[in-house]
Amino acid sequence: MGFSVTILGSGSALPTTHANQSAQVIEMGNQLFLMDCGEATQINLRRRKVKMQKIDHIFISHLHGDHYFGLVGLLSTMRLLGREKPLYIYAPKGLQEIVELQFKNANSDFSYALVFQEVTHAGQLLLETDKLKITTLPLKHRIPCFGYLFEEKEKDRKLIPEKLAEHDIPNYARHALTKGEDFISTEDGRLVKNIELTKDPEPPKAYAYCSDTAYNEALFPFIKGIDLLYHEATFLNEEKEWAKKTYHSTAIQAAEVARKCNVKRLIIGHFSSRYKNREPFLQEGRQVFENMDIAEEGETFYP
Amino acid sequence: MGFSVTILGSGSALPTTHANQSAQVIEMGNQLFLMDCGEATQINLRRRKVKMQKIDHIFISHLHGDHYFGLVGLLSTMRLLGREKPLYIYAPKGLQEIVELQFKNANSDFSYALVFQEVTHAGQLLLETDKLKITTLPLKHRIPCFGYLFEEKEKDRKLIPEKLAEHDIPNYARHALTKGEDFISTEDGRLVKNIELTKDPEPPKAYAYCSDTAYNEALFPFIKGIDLLYHEATFLNEEKEWAKKTYHSTAIQAAEVARKCNVKRLIIGHFSSRYKNREPFLQEGRQVFENMDIAEEGETFYP
Repeated sequence: MGFSVTILGSGSALPTTHANQSAQVIEMGNQLFLMDCGEATQINLRRRKVKMQKIDHIFISHLHGDHYFGLVGLLSTMRLLGREKPLYIYAPKGLQEIVELQFKNANSDFSYALVFQEVTHAGQLLLETDKLKITTLPLKHRIPCFGYLFEEKEKDRKLIPEKLAEHDIPNYARHALTKGEDFISTEDGRLVKNIELTKDPEPPKAYAYCSDTAYNEALFPFIKGIDLLYHEATFLNEEKEWAKKTYHSTAIQAAEVARKCNVKRLIIGHFSSRYKNREPFLQEGRQVFENMDIAEEGETFYP
Repeated sequence: MGFSVTILGSGSALPTTHANQSAQVIEMGNQLFLMDCGEATQINLRRRKVKMQKIDHIFISHLHGDHYFGLVGLLSTMRLLGREKPLYIYAPKGLQEIVELQFKNANSDFSYALVFQEVTHAGQLLLETDKLKITTLPLKHRIPCFGYLFEEKEKDRKLIPEKLAEHDIPNYARHALTKGEDFISTEDGRLVKNIELTKDPEPPKAYAYCSDTAYNEALFPFIKGIDLLYHEATFLNEEKEWAKKTYHSTAIQAAEVARKCNVKRLIIGHFSSRYKNREPFLQEGRQVFENMDIAEEGETFYP
């Protein structure tokens, strides 16, 4: 499995028949992560044939309904489908009480552990494995709100099969070679430099999810040079003042963030339902940052 | 406007891409009522082109998520669309706390009054106008759960235009005639019997919503002879024991309720997602009660 981001929803507060509320599935290091969970996310997971029980970690940016109203339904469904392994939920303070109150009223036994971790500050380390690291990002919104940064770790060096054959390298030595060690024969002591037998791995990639937020320079140091940035763009430039007032961004502002942070690619979403056509978002934004696209429902992006 | 019941969802706990969770729109006496509100009900209201702001009263049968997880999203949307008139919500204890906790965390001002009325017992009068009466029904489920009975009131007598002309009845007398009074001329004192000038109105109709429930004879006195009964039928007969254990009904049991209560027509819903085909529900049930149908999503029924 590679590293990918599949968009389930790119609408904002008002769901319509063509725009779902915020939700994304991130595949990385052989794991599935769910990012935000607007109403009907479980239906959209089914529609996209995502194996929902493979999701072990759910990240909620903030407690406006279009980012989490689908969560409790998804948790119920996981229970009804017999889930046993724990599920980890990362969110600002308040979500645990909301979820637990609803299950208390349903008088439902839980078949699996629901582990809440409160997100309290930017740069907070939430998850780290040998393959990846997930931390929080500072966003600026009307209520506590966080972005999430998904970073791959340095990968193993790539073996060059014909070189291994040429130098008659035994199998047991392969693992150490991927870690960058030189080969020293245990039989005759001969040495072959690592650089003769391996090549550089692909550089580690990074993806940042930033929704909802006003234009926020405090975010910049965290996302400098990353491969893929999702940044909200609720409004077009004509609504710049309204965007500021409601702590949202315009397409141009999202593009400015991408340009100033020198990210490789930008995708935008969280469009206000007042816009029937998403094309003007690209027209405006691409004047500032060319490599940007709409995070359309159903599309998959690769950092 | 007449009296109609439009099905938005007939699935049960596990929503799928083809079966929505419980929700119905009832049109009656120039008002729209929403019955239960499973996840994504607001999307289904849009899909069916129901004017959601015309809904002033929402009835929730019980606090299992498939009957109310779409409520808080719908309430948010009504707020964002600028609703100002009050909204009345009828539900068992617990719902108000759940809804208010979520709006508190969103830090959202409310543009309209949300008025909760707790449903506590069967036969409880919830709403009465000159045209209709809505009361609660006793259901038997794992947690407190109520059905709802919608009854039209006796309608006005129907004027017979050619008879009014023949007897030279003045316009001012029409209203009293529809109320069953005889005509007595204020000019010459002549009398025309009401029965000469009017005919009987259509008899008042009644609709009962009964979900979720085990087979429950306590319900019978409340629904004797009504025009239309929605009764849950989560399982086929082969799952009779499981139905009993989970406080649900089979299609045959729903049909028995209809037959014993001598209702005119039965519709069934709340089908378990284990059944891909709904036809066997009719095959089983119609052996007990012929005039029964599936409450398919999108269909409208007239009591």
